[in-house]
Amino acid sequence: MINRFAVILAAGQGTRMKSKLYKVLHPVCGKPMVEHVVDHISQLDVNHVVTVVGYGAEMVKERLQGKSDFVIQEEQLGTAHAVMQAKDALGGKRGTTLVICGDTPLITVETMSALIKQHEETGAKASVLTAHAEDPAGYGRIIRNADGAVAKIVEHKDANEEELKVKEINTGTYCFDNEALFEALDNVSNENAQGEYYLPDVIEILKAKNELVTAYSTDDFEETLGVNDRIALAEAERIMRARINRKHMKNGVTITDPSNTYIDTDVIIGSDTVILPGTVIQGATKIGEGCKIGPNSEMNNCEISHNTIVQQSVLSDSSVGSHVKIGPFAHIRPESDIQDEVKIGNFVEVKKTYFGKGSKASHLSYIGDAEVGRNVNIGCGSITVNYDGKNKFLTKIDDDVFVGCNSNLVAPVTVKEGAYIAAGSTITDDVPESALAIARARQVNKENYVEKLKSNK
Amino acid sequence: MINRFAVILAAGQGTRMKSKLYKVLHPVCGKPMVEHVVDHISQLDVNHVVTVVGYGAEMVKERLQGKSDFVIQEEQLGTAHAVMQAKDALGGKRGTTLVICGDTPLITVETMSALIKQHEETGAKASVLTAHAEDPAGYGRIIRNADGAVAKIVEHKDANEEELKVKEINTGTYCFDNEALFEALDNVSNENAQGEYYLPDVIEILKAKNELVTAYSTDDFEETLGVNDRIALAEAERIMRARINRKHMKNGVTITDPSNTYIDTDVIIGSDTVILPGTVIQGATKIGEGCKIGPNSEMNNCEISHNTIVQQSVLSDSSVGSHVKIGPFAHIRPESDIQDEVKIGNFVEVKKTYFGKGSKASHLSYIGDAEVGRNVNIGCGSITVNYDGKNKFLTKIDDDVFVGCNSNLVAPVTVKEGAYIAAGSTITDDVPESALAIARARQVNKENYVEKLKSNK
Amino acid sequence: MINRFAVILAAGQGTRMKSKLYKVLHPVCGKPMVEHVVDHISQLDVNHVVTVVGYGAEMVKERLQGKSDFVIQEEQLGTAHAVMQAKDALGGKRGTTLVICGDTPLITVETMSALIKQHEETGAKASVLTAHAEDPAGYGRIIRNADGAVAKIVEHKDANEEELKVKEINTGTYCFDNEALFEALDNVSNENAQGEYYLPDVIEILKAKNELVTAYSTDDFEETLGVNDRIALAEAERIMRARINRKHMKNGVTITDPSNTYIDTDVIIGSDTVILPGTVIQGATKIGEGCKIGPNSEMNNCEISHNTIVQQSVLSDSSVGSHVKIGPFAHIRPESDIQDEVKIGNFVEVKKTYFGKGSKASHLSYIGDAEVGRNVNIGCGSITVNYDGKNKFLTKIDDDVFVGCNSNLVAPVTVKEGAYIAAGSTITDDVPESALAIARARQVNKENYVEKLKSNK
Repeated sequence: MINRFAVILAAGQGTRMKSKLYKVLHPVCGKPMVEHVVDHISQLDVNHVVTVVGYGAEMVKERLQGKSDFVIQEEQLGTAHAVMQAKDALGGKRGTTLVICGDTPLITVETMSALIKQHEETGAKASVLTAHAEDPAGYGRIIRNADGAVAKIVEHKDANEEELKVKEINTGTYCFDNEALFEALDNVSNENAQGEYYLPDVIEILKAKNELVTAYSTDDFEETLGVNDRIALAEAERIMRARINRKHMKNGVTITDPSNTYIDTDVIIGSDTVILPGTVIQGATKIGEGCKIGPNSEMNNCEISHNTIVQQSVLSDSSVGSHVKIGPFAHIRPESDIQDEVKIGNFVEVKKTYFGKGSKASHLSYIGDAEVGRNVNIGCGSITVNYDGKNKFLTKIDDDVFVGCNSNLVAPVTVKEGAYIAAGSTITDDVPESALAIARARQVNKENYVEKLKSNK
Repeated sequence: MINRFAVILAAGQGTRMKSKLYKVLHPVCGKPMVEHVVDHISQLDVNHVVTVVGYGAEMVKERLQGKSDFVIQEEQLGTAHAVMQAKDALGGKRGTTLVICGDTPLITVETMSALIKQHEETGAKASVLTAHAEDPAGYGRIIRNADGAVAKIVEHKDANEEELKVKEINTGTYCFDNEALFEALDNVSNENAQGEYYLPDVIEILKAKNELVTAYSTDDFEETLGVNDRIALAEAERIMRARINRKHMKNGVTITDPSNTYIDTDVIIGSDTVILPGTVIQGATKIGEGCKIGPNSEMNNCEISHNTIVQQSVLSDSSVGSHVKIGPFAHIRPESDIQDEVKIGNFVEVKKTYFGKGSKASHLSYIGDAEVGRNVNIGCGSITVNYDGKNKFLTKIDDDVFVGCNSNLVAPVTVKEGAYIAAGSTITDDVPESALAIARARQVNKENYVEKLKSNK
Repeated sequence: MINRFAVILAAGQGTRMKSKLYKVLHPVCGKPMVEHVVDHISQLDVNHVVTVVGYGAEMVKERLQGKSDFVIQEEQLGTAHAVMQAKDALGGKRGTTLVICGDTPLITVETMSALIKQHEETGAKASVLTAHAEDPAGYGRIIRNADGAVAKIVEHKDANEEELKVKEINTGTYCFDNEALFEALDNVSNENAQGEYYLPDVIEILKAKNELVTAYSTDDFEETLGVNDRIALAEAERIMRARINRKHMKNGVTITDPSNTYIDTDVIIGSDTVILPGTVIQGATKIGEGCKIGPNSEMNNCEISHNTIVQQSVLSDSSVGSHVKIGPFAHIRPESDIQDEVKIGNFVEVKKTYFGKGSKASHLSYIGDAEVGRNVNIGCGSITVNYDGKNKFLTKIDDDVFVGCNSNLVAPVTVKEGAYIAAGSTITDDVPESALAIARARQVNKENYVEKLKSNK
């Protein structure tokens, strides 16, 4: 078995991002771009992953902890210099090293794998990932020999007329024979306008020694996009979004408008679920079969069972059963656990609450820090008064309770099974089983009041 | 007059859809794809429409009831076999038969009509609908004679180098002379790899008999899209959406972003109405002139008059007058009838309610099962308590009533003309004309309470 | 210094818009198309701007008041006739005149400037703005001499085979030497099929006199789009939207989906702010750094400070501090002033209210016509009862007040510092400092009521 290593170049400042956030941490479809690269590599048979980070990039380390080792490139002296920093971490072992930029989140596992495979099968000392650009201006061109091997890589500015016509370009992703790489790196010079050490010089050095350099060309130019500004970031987001949505559609999910549906990388969705436009599904969300989600809904880290409807609503960090109806305009906040056949209607907020099977809060309610039993009906405008300005308290509503409209349940309070709360009541004491609790003033009609009022004015 | 028939092939299982729903019933812009085909044919001068459905496709029959006759293809033995099933239904009459797939919802009436016209005018025994594909790989190629007639149709796999260059492809839509069709069908064989009877073989059989076969080519490759998976479904939706939106824009409707506006096929919209992004307009909705709808609104089966504003709201199965303002974040549920100049404001739900001219429910209310007169002001947080856990009751609010904030109107109850309900009251009894109804406790201020509370703790 | 003039042709009826609104007043990204043209010209060194409007176009004058002078073209007798109307307004002065259509909002300042510069540097009598069209059908073609000067402009219908192949087209924007222009205009005839006076005839007249006519070609065909119907209007909107969004992205704003984010021309956004999809930002809105806006939010004429979150909400004509959280589903209405670290949660409406630092209205409230101090907690369902059916009154809530859930504050009313209002109270009188105000009935539990109820039925 060949040793395989990966070096991820993630030390670039990314000044064109104009951001306080370290460049490679900018998310694409909910995941930092460098983490896409690391996660892709984790699906290859690679023994050791080293990420080269810039001075002070603690957040990158924190985010990738356990997925990669790190070396620091204190000064930004070029890509060859960056790879050099990884030399000790790779321990001088023989093997294959994949060198890839942390800002190319779209290069697929398949492409990486094919590059490595060709590299190893041909016994090349170096292999370049290439693509065909409609407009290759600015890119290094791949000049191949008659046998297909790489003769040289010419930078745009150094290319002659013939070379400028070449559309196969260098993507900045490479495979190297480990020994050949570090031997060549020692010979890379910084005698150029920028005074930097450039990784493509390694190719030139290897070619000067008559070593074999191959190129693996991906069909899909888009996947080689490097993200250097927010325009490219939006473009990467668009491409990855399309890729994610195609995967779900192939699995039998209907996405009415894939260009307007925003699903994070790791979301799971069952077949015959319909995702309507303007919907954002994030984090580790898992949605069952036959659901209808959207339009204009947001969902983060939720688990939704089958045949559930979520319309124009926002949910986070909660679990929702099957045949549940949520929305329009509902808000399910974290730690809610909503059982089957529940209805959470318009203008209802649920927070840290268990809702038993078949219960309903259909309109204009806030149910927080509560345990709601089965077949409970929570009337319109009912509120759990869970906060006294200092602490939060629990409201317990047992099975088959009917809570009248515009009621306050002042926690801590328990409403026992089958009890009935009259509309407009503020409930401060526990309500016994099957009791009616009422706390309101009697109605008085003052006749002709309105006319008197007018004549008084 | 020539007899005209249409045979719609709708028996395919559509396994790539990965769906429990029969393939041709998947909706495109709110209407099952096969119903688009049937509705298009209904605009042609066709005497008899027969849809070939698979075993058990009861839902197709139910959906198309009255629009088509049906024959069952019990086993899926190929397209020629499918057409054969329609033989008896067509009754052996002479005439022209249009054969079209139930999964091609985008083929326009104009294209169908032009195909039939050319077929009949040339006296061809068969005519093929063709299109020019940028990338024809996989498609059957149309090989024409010097005179333009079809020489043969070559499947991709059987095509020689010259034929592979042809970009005119077979769309799978045909016109046939009825007698020629069924005579030829008798001779189609299933001696091929799949053991199926293929409809294009009919062309070969007719050509072998030196019959005239013509081809009508549509300019628009897109309209020939066949929907076989959810990716194609989304693509069909996109194309039809663009087509619908162009129609409305030509009629004088402003659609800020047509790529992000979702209007069903049969919706009617008046000129100078503006549709803002993220808006979904469904079913038999009819919107007048000068309205402003959206953004992010949903409307299903509604009738909206002129100069009405609907912002960030959801409406269904209701009627709304002119100069009405709805939203943001309002929900109009079925059977509501909202007269002119009404305002339904934020976080207001209306259900099965008549709202008289000039009345207002501006904030945080639920008005259900109610009759509201003219110039009524429903204060913030007011609720019709229409449900006692068993039954629903009516609330009647006459003209010029003022309902104070956070009131409950416990139905059945009537508030007579010009009455005034004090804020925070729960109204259980009828309120006479011009009376003030009040049902609340008197305020007590407990001085220094908060300090005592703190010192007690 | 050369005198510079601009004549904007804005008298066209625009019948294809099918609108009651004068064509050039239709907005593109929130600003009437003609105002884009005027605003672009205002960035050039132009002495005098004259807009030619049609009979009755009072709204155009009103909208552009102070930015342009106006002349009336009473009858629509063609573009040359329109320019003639501006003759007196330009006062017979020598200089350069830019002639541009009021329906071409996308022509950039840079392009106008380059056209004028080339015109003046070459000493041409006339210069045409041209572009290269993929499909030039229908456009006038630019026929150039060997030296690059314009030989003639040929209308599509008059072009020979060679000329039809030319892809450089006339965009309808020109620079003229003022004297040459008006002298030539006197000689333009209306002896053509439509009986109109056409501006391109001026070019022919000048060429007949052997005057120099040059052409400046823009690289970007899109910017020359003329808006004649709602389809072109949507297209102009799309192009300008993309242009605006690119500007913000270059400045360090993350726009998750630029094709689905709607930002008006004059909006200002700080770096590291994230704009989520479906968001509409209008008018003179200014947003600080590090904010998170959207998805599906609307904002009009607001000033938002740094690190503020606005989720699924609607704001207008208000000011919002830093570290504020708004939404989801909140509505901030005009004249609200929300200080730092405030929370306005779900289903909360704020109108004409000052909210002091650190105060919260987290759920289901309406706070209107109010002054709220610092660290106030407004409980769920609390309402300022600001309207008695006739007038609106002020509610004053001092620092550190706790307003219990489902309370009514009947204005005019003041709740003094540190006071506490019990849940479910309707407050009609002022509450002293640190007092507890309570106004509710005592709870009664009627045991076994539900069973009795059932046995009675």
